Amino acid sequence: MDSTRTFVKDVKRVVVKVGTAVVTRSDGRLALGRLGALCEQLKELNSRGFEVILVTSGAVGVGRQRLKYRKLVNSSFADLQKPQVELDGKACAAVGQSGLMALYDVLFSQLDVTSSQLLVTDNNFRDSDFRLQLSETVKSLLALRVIPIFNENDAISTRIAVYEDSSGIFWDNDSLAALLATELKADLLILLSDVEGLYSGPPSEANSKLIHTYIKETHQGGITFGDKSRVGRGGMTAKVKAAVHAAYAGVPVIITSGYATDNIIKVLQGERIGTLFHKDAHLWAPRKDVGAREMAVAARDCSRRLQGLSSENRRKILLDIADALETNEKLIKAENGADVVTAQQAGYDKSLISRLELKPGKISGLAKSIRVLADMEEPIGQILKRTELADGLVLEKTSSPLGVLLIVFESRPDALVQIASLAIRSGNGLLLKGGKEAKRSNAILHKVITSAIPDTVGEKLIGLVTSREEIPDLLKLDDVIDLVIPRGSNKLVSQIKESTKIPVLGHADGICHVYVDKSANMEMAKQIVLDAKMDYPAACNAMETLLVHNELLNTSGFNELIAGLRSEGVALYGGPKASTSLNIKETPSFHHEYNSMACTIEIVEDVYAAIDHIHRHGSAHTDCIITEDDETAELFLRQVDSAAVFLNASTRFCDGARFGLGAEVGISTSRIHARGPVGVEGLLTTRWILRGSGQVVDNDKGVIYTHKNIGLQS
Amino acid sequence: MDSTRTFVKDVKRVVVKVGTAVVTRSDGRLALGRLGALCEQLKELNSRGFEVILVTSGAVGVGRQRLKYRKLVNSSFADLQKPQVELDGKACAAVGQSGLMALYDVLFSQLDVTSSQLLVTDNNFRDSDFRLQLSETVKSLLALRVIPIFNENDAISTRIAVYEDSSGIFWDNDSLAALLATELKADLLILLSDVEGLYSGPPSEANSKLIHTYIKETHQGGITFGDKSRVGRGGMTAKVKAAVHAAYAGVPVIITSGYATDNIIKVLQGERIGTLFHKDAHLWAPRKDVGAREMAVAARDCSRRLQGLSSENRRKILLDIADALETNEKLIKAENGADVVTAQQAGYDKSLISRLELKPGKISGLAKSIRVLADMEEPIGQILKRTELADGLVLEKTSSPLGVLLIVFESRPDALVQIASLAIRSGNGLLLKGGKEAKRSNAILHKVITSAIPDTVGEKLIGLVTSREEIPDLLKLDDVIDLVIPRGSNKLVSQIKESTKIPVLGHADGICHVYVDKSANMEMAKQIVLDAKMDYPAACNAMETLLVHNELLNTSGFNELIAGLRSEGVALYGGPKASTSLNIKETPSFHHEYNSMACTIEIVEDVYAAIDHIHRHGSAHTDCIITEDDETAELFLRQVDSAAVFLNASTRFCDGARFGLGAEVGISTSRIHARGPVGVEGLLTTRWILRGSGQVVDNDKGVIYTHKNIGLQS
Repeated sequence: MDSTRTFVKDVKRVVVKVGTAVVTRSDGRLALGRLGALCEQLKELNSRGFEVILVTSGAVGVGRQRLKYRKLVNSSFADLQKPQVELDGKACAAVGQSGLMALYDVLFSQLDVTSSQLLVTDNNFRDSDFRLQLSETVKSLLALRVIPIFNENDAISTRIAVYEDSSGIFWDNDSLAALLATELKADLLILLSDVEGLYSGPPSEANSKLIHTYIKETHQGGITFGDKSRVGRGGMTAKVKAAVHAAYAGVPVIITSGYATDNIIKVLQGERIGTLFHKDAHLWAPRKDVGAREMAVAARDCSRRLQGLSSENRRKILLDIADALETNEKLIKAENGADVVTAQQAGYDKSLISRLELKPGKISGLAKSIRVLADMEEPIGQILKRTELADGLVLEKTSSPLGVLLIVFESRPDALVQIASLAIRSGNGLLLKGGKEAKRSNAILHKVITSAIPDTVGEKLIGLVTSREEIPDLLKLDDVIDLVIPRGSNKLVSQIKESTKIPVLGHADGICHVYVDKSANMEMAKQIVLDAKMDYPAACNAMETLLVHNELLNTSGFNELIAGLRSEGVALYGGPKASTSLNIKETPSFHHEYNSMACTIEIVEDVYAAIDHIHRHGSAHTDCIITEDDETAELFLRQVDSAAVFLNASTRFCDGARFGLGAEVGISTSRIHARGPVGVEGLLTTRWILRGSGQVVDNDKGVIYTHKNIGLQS
Repeated sequence: MDSTRTFVKDVKRVVVKVGTAVVTRSDGRLALGRLGALCEQLKELNSRGFEVILVTSGAVGVGRQRLKYRKLVNSSFADLQKPQVELDGKACAAVGQSGLMALYDVLFSQLDVTSSQLLVTDNNFRDSDFRLQLSETVKSLLALRVIPIFNENDAISTRIAVYEDSSGIFWDNDSLAALLATELKADLLILLSDVEGLYSGPPSEANSKLIHTYIKETHQGGITFGDKSRVGRGGMTAKVKAAVHAAYAGVPVIITSGYATDNIIKVLQGERIGTLFHKDAHLWAPRKDVGAREMAVAARDCSRRLQGLSSENRRKILLDIADALETNEKLIKAENGADVVTAQQAGYDKSLISRLELKPGKISGLAKSIRVLADMEEPIGQILKRTELADGLVLEKTSSPLGVLLIVFESRPDALVQIASLAIRSGNGLLLKGGKEAKRSNAILHKVITSAIPDTVGEKLIGLVTSREEIPDLLKLDDVIDLVIPRGSNKLVSQIKESTKIPVLGHADGICHVYVDKSANMEMAKQIVLDAKMDYPAACNAMETLLVHNELLNTSGFNELIAGLRSEGVALYGGPKASTSLNIKETPSFHHEYNSMACTIEIVEDVYAAIDHIHRHGSAHTDCIITEDDETAELFLRQVDSAAVFLNASTRFCDGARFGLGAEVGISTSRIHARGPVGVEGLLTTRWILRGSGQVVDNDKGVIYTHKNIGLQS
């Protein structure tokens, strides 16, 4: 449930208004599919105990369509030659009203719902007895679970210009709906439109954004609504006017599309669809859908200023952060302690709490690693390649920051410090979203770090995203955010990969293999296999599948290896061959990550079969061969197409710190940009700098190309 | 229109069958929204002149629901205590039938369509007079534009087990629909289901793929249909059986979802939705939806074999290709000539034809550049970094091929040769899709190149995609294709970026700026600006915006620059300042790529304003400063965050060949992986190779880390 929509939990009485653009099709006939879906949804609400009141438009359009048809049928050929007079609006309303109500009656009857008709005019409401009586009538109907269907009684209305007169107590069905919602003390008014809600500009324009919450002070007057709806009187301007009126009278309003078949249900489940009007909206925290883009843009601006600093000044920021962390250690520990207590009280499991806790020495350890990072070779502006293209025309390929990174990480608050320092080192802007368990820890760490960033750069270099709901908005900003790095469960990574066009650096699966060749030193094999599985069974670089050469079956070395796994408590699942040979359960799939004290075992014919198995079933993360045969080793190392390929070493070595990359932002199984453990390098891109003295291309006759590699010294 | 669906152009009489799972909701009531949408679509077909026959299910379910409700209403409290007997199926059918027909009548009436009811039993069809009469009746109804609605007359059927007896002339509404379609000589039968069509496995499983065209020989028996539909008798097995029956009797059948509101319309527009059954399907060329994945997988397999070859053998393939191109020059020119003639006859514009034509010397030029590529340093397996992690534990970062590339390119056939040779050089598999104008040229070039690939690798290393319809299928294969490189119009690039999760290397916009600083040598400025705009105005690296320092206004140098542009015929559009100062038209947007003899001019305060303008409105492709002031130059070069940043040189230099990268696969404005002109390097990724002698991590106590950079020599 969206945080701005929680009030729907207390909604009992709801007014739904459906406009002409929803009720009728472009040919003027009733939109049967949409009306059917509307009735089905109202039936659903009715069954769930909501009190449902419907305000419907569409009678005039339906009547006009029907009268045209009737007139045609009744016309002689001579009649058709005459100029056709415009059909009378009130006549159309009268004809259409009965047709519309008949259809509602049939549809609701099919759903075992009784509906009722209430036609009202503006004048009626001038009579206070009428108002009282109307409330009573509606109350009685609702008590009987009957759905009252309201419409303006256009056929007998005495207003002069029905379509234009916007004075009076109400003047169209939007204002009628708002009036009824307040008069009948509804808890919610839903206005169904032909667009998703209110947009910041014309909905047809690409950069118009749906406004999730209307704030009178912010949005009034600043929005172009685009054209009126193609039919009906209202359009978005009328809807907003009615919505503001009802909302400030105390009835929240949601404008959403009536074209979808389930939007009413979604609104009442608190989903964040459409535009909400609520009298207290201006008091709420600034909405994130406005904030997400601004945050990213600010981070980019700050990052450009950061890049403008000298290397020494950038280094100094890191040293200041390291100092600030140590100075504020007590404060940080206190906030972290509070998170830990909350997590314990909430009954989170031990491993989560262990990851959440900043243990003694952690802060100084973090400070130390930041200082190491500060002393690393300057990563920005490194010249990677220098070529003389022609006389006096020199090309350099230089390293430069990616831009703005979005990191979504789970419980570990120390990840925030690592990532923030890597981002600063590499000159990038950063948006961070941590887990809710570490909320207070992340907030204080973010505050301590950003306080150490000088004003010449701006503390918005690093933004802390505090609500999960902002993630979808951020993931849409593929024009401002350059890379997303999810650090957490496979599910998190997969979800993010599914839902963004921004490049994602990370790995969804870590199905790592160890292949024990026939020539393996079996004592070594046992050591490595046990370490690869047991050192941290839930890690992405832990072994999930053990492949064993055929000829090792029934050898004492192999038996000891299996016995070793068993005695450590590792549950074994076999492929078709191993399950028979070893009499163990068969694994449901070779592409399976246990993340626990379990693994798959399979017997393979030879190294080629092992490679084939890894290519077919692996996740191209880390795969290892154990062999004493050099030729076999090199074959495996050359052919296995994974981010990391190991010989006679535990898969657990696949890690940024162990690889000597300093801090690590994650491990990538993506094949582009960065692969395997990613440190500072993965946060950099390149720029081509060309220095000339007036050279032109002139159809390639402008210069004589030399293309001389001139080394990196200038 | 999909190539397998072109027969729909000739469809006049169509039978639509809608099953219980579509007609009724999970609570047993009629699905009003779906029924409404069904009637609206049939009305649409009716208006367009199609002869529409509807076969509907749902009566039994509706009747059961209604009888339950009626029974409840009529029950005493005591009645409700007794065990409830199952309602009689035939009674349900009788009750439901009238309700269902009443609803169809109301819905169709709303749409000014007359419908009619035809209840038939299996036995009726045993009578040949009945068959004749039925055809006549239906013919009369259709002539009057009345929609016949068929249903099995369950209420009076004498079959013992209505739901299980699948003998007879028909045994459910699927077989009834197939029978009617053949009996009434329909041109198409549409079976509406609750899933998108027939899948290769249970639709709920992720790797089940929708089968676009059913081929009896391929698919029969090999498909698990998953569970039967939750309601109704049929399920997918029954539908396939009926569909095969009708298709082999000469009526094509499409199974598609009845949940969507416009699938019937889409089917009749020839869109590729649902599963098609056609008696000639087995004669058609192998379908691409099967082919796309197979093609990509084959390319990957071949690329792994290619990588397994020695460097020398890989080099030899390129030399063989170069020879083969020269040997087959006549053949290639003949096919290319045929393409050119076709394009001329089709009235394509000159620039397209010029790009299409392989001019004299082109083939030998291509052969030459392939030989240069062959002699380049081996790109695969290069050691980029070597670190000793601990004693006897050595880590190497090595270059390796990306995997499988998909290149979509427009008219130039020489691009095929360039890209294919780059792919082979970099050890990648390749799928190529060229423009239809160069169809014959591409086919012969592909044939010549793949013929030179040895069998040990396999000619499927390079696949040629021949139909535009395959592109969407290919773009879905994010698990088999590693990189997409679109080479062509902005529109092509944008479309591809929008529609795939595979990383895309390319640039949608090329809004390149030249900033003329106050200290510029104005003669040089004029030369560079004219070259940047005029050398090839439609190129992505052509200047689109000229930024000029404020102080240059009204100087003779500036006036000459403007005069120069004007005398070359360049149309000038100004920003707010320039349009006033120079009295020229205002540009509608600074983010505009003219791709022609036109450009935007704006006056800026200083270099900072120029940088800001470029960041705000540019596309981060190539931007240039013209200045004689070193400090200003370095500021610009350091701060402008574009793929290529130039000093005193034409933007037109931004090109793979001019940069000395050999052939170019394209220019990337993406910030990750490869940026700017992309040659072989952009087609490579890295792998981490770790060689040990039994080392384990053991909670980081297993080894003593040294992290020593040990240089690239082994």
